[in-house]
Amino acid sequence: MSLRQVPIDQVIERALNGDRRAIGRLLSLVERGGDDAETIETATHVRARDSHVIGITGAPGAGKSTMVARLVAAFSAADRRPAVVAVDPSSPLTGGAILGDRVRMAEVDTTAFIRSVATRGHSGGLALSVPGSARVLAAAGFDPVIIETVGVGQVEVDVTAAADTTVVVVTPGMGDAVQANKAGLLEVADIFVVNKADLPGASDARRDLELMLELSHVTGQEDADHRPPIIMVNSLEGDGIDAVRTAIAEHRDHLVTTDRLQERRRKRARYEMRVRAELAFGAHLQRRLGEPEFAATVDSVAQGDDTPAAAARKLWQPYA
Amino acid sequence: MSLRQVPIDQVIERALNGDRRAIGRLLSLVERGGDDAETIETATHVRARDSHVIGITGAPGAGKSTMVARLVAAFSAADRRPAVVAVDPSSPLTGGAILGDRVRMAEVDTTAFIRSVATRGHSGGLALSVPGSARVLAAAGFDPVIIETVGVGQVEVDVTAAADTTVVVVTPGMGDAVQANKAGLLEVADIFVVNKADLPGASDARRDLELMLELSHVTGQEDADHRPPIIMVNSLEGDGIDAVRTAIAEHRDHLVTTDRLQERRRKRARYEMRVRAELAFGAHLQRRLGEPEFAATVDSVAQGDDTPAAAARKLWQPYA
Repeated sequence: MSLRQVPIDQVIERALNGDRRAIGRLLSLVERGGDDAETIETATHVRARDSHVIGITGAPGAGKSTMVARLVAAFSAADRRPAVVAVDPSSPLTGGAILGDRVRMAEVDTTAFIRSVATRGHSGGLALSVPGSARVLAAAGFDPVIIETVGVGQVEVDVTAAADTTVVVVTPGMGDAVQANKAGLLEVADIFVVNKADLPGASDARRDLELMLELSHVTGQEDADHRPPIIMVNSLEGDGIDAVRTAIAEHRDHLVTTDRLQERRRKRARYEMRVRAELAFGAHLQRRLGEPEFAATVDSVAQGDDTPAAAARKLWQPYA
Repeated sequence: MSLRQVPIDQVIERALNGDRRAIGRLLSLVERGGDDAETIETATHVRARDSHVIGITGAPGAGKSTMVARLVAAFSAADRRPAVVAVDPSSPLTGGAILGDRVRMAEVDTTAFIRSVATRGHSGGLALSVPGSARVLAAAGFDPVIIETVGVGQVEVDVTAAADTTVVVVTPGMGDAVQANKAGLLEVADIFVVNKADLPGASDARRDLELMLELSHVTGQEDADHRPPIIMVNSLEGDGIDAVRTAIAEHRDHLVTTDRLQERRRKRARYEMRVRAELAFGAHLQRRLGEPEFAATVDSVAQGDDTPAAAARKLWQPYA
């Protein structure tokens, strides 16, 4: 019997008992958004709080998916039950590599749960669906839950940064650390990984990161008691993966002992509340923009008379 | 004398007269956002309307920047004055390639204006600054203005799709067209380019696109009178570049003769108005979330008691 015909409460019950097909069905509903997604959120939110959520991000081609595959194997070997929400980049090359890794990962370890989602959703989008999917996997008993996104795009970086622990992956190459900084990745990192550390320039990449961390310590960071470690990794060979796993565990301990885990969760709560409110308000604005009242204003902007800023003020000022 | 000490009205006047340093200064101010950016918008909006805005997007590694370099040379050879706003991906490899191309392009053609911006801005972000930068370049007399972004990320795709003509670049490779579809690129394309058309699989990529266009024609597209052409290009050799330039000109003619150019401009006006209103409202929400009134709600969500959806409703319902 197809799960599409099973009432949602029963699908939720099965998923919470670890039924993989039911979990997959819930993830599809969360990605779609709407009322079902909210029912699922209500059923999973409180149960999700014990799992550690890890965000992993970095530039396209940084070897994130290979590293995640290795990390999943390492967590499984340590008797954890890892799950992954991977936001597919639209690159065919990277996409291909991800598929390849997923297949290999599935052969290695059938207990982990791997979910790949499209870069660009149709309703609500990644900003809502990724935390929702992580919540489903956590409530179903997976721990840690790894969110992997490409470190390009505001939404993609923000959603990874809403994790308990955020790992930023860079590779040796001229200006890679500088690029990561430009992409806003420096400020969100709890742990740095220099992947492909066998390549020339790996020690330069480490030095660049150290220098930039030094500078950012001067200007002040969110968590002054934690200096992000820089770990050299060769994901293809598996070198350094256990050091990453240890650094993640140490960061979690740090969060718990300094009471910063709750601060992270409050930050995530604010992030989810704001994103939802913005989406709801955005839909409201979209409707307003379609109303006859605004037709003349839109025309005027399109013709070059009114400026977008002035026209936008007419739209939002009643709400501010 | 540094332009920082020149009153903004004078910098604007110089920029509108084609002074390249003044144009660069305005672009920096637009990227920064705020009052100066709005002053610049007011001075440039109406003057910008005659330039054709071209969006170019595609997966990382699709060879967009090489193609844009060729296209700039082709427009210059046809006595146009092209400018480019390129949103730098954080990839060191692609970033490096862009720099390389820019340098080569600068040698070939010193009349074009090329502006590279970081992927992730600090205030307002790409969604505001990219249309604003295009407006400055158009008002300074550049035509066409090309916006180049990586086709990953909601903001990045949306900002490119707000052009008059949007070109989506794919490369031969298993499932590339499918990936482009997943990334939402199929629905925004007015023209498809299969780049690196000398590689194996190029004809497969074309066939995949044709098939998907066929299917999307069944379900209905925004512009039923325009079927996106698919152009085979080898940017390294320059093959097909003139066909792209011609297709862009034909699409503009189509927009003008069918009165769809105004519809595109209205769409862009609505996009800019909505983005601005959302950002203004988002800042307002961020302040609200920091107020004591919401502290208990945020705590409750962080602890797993309240759901994010329920808490978000408290936040946005007063405005809906």
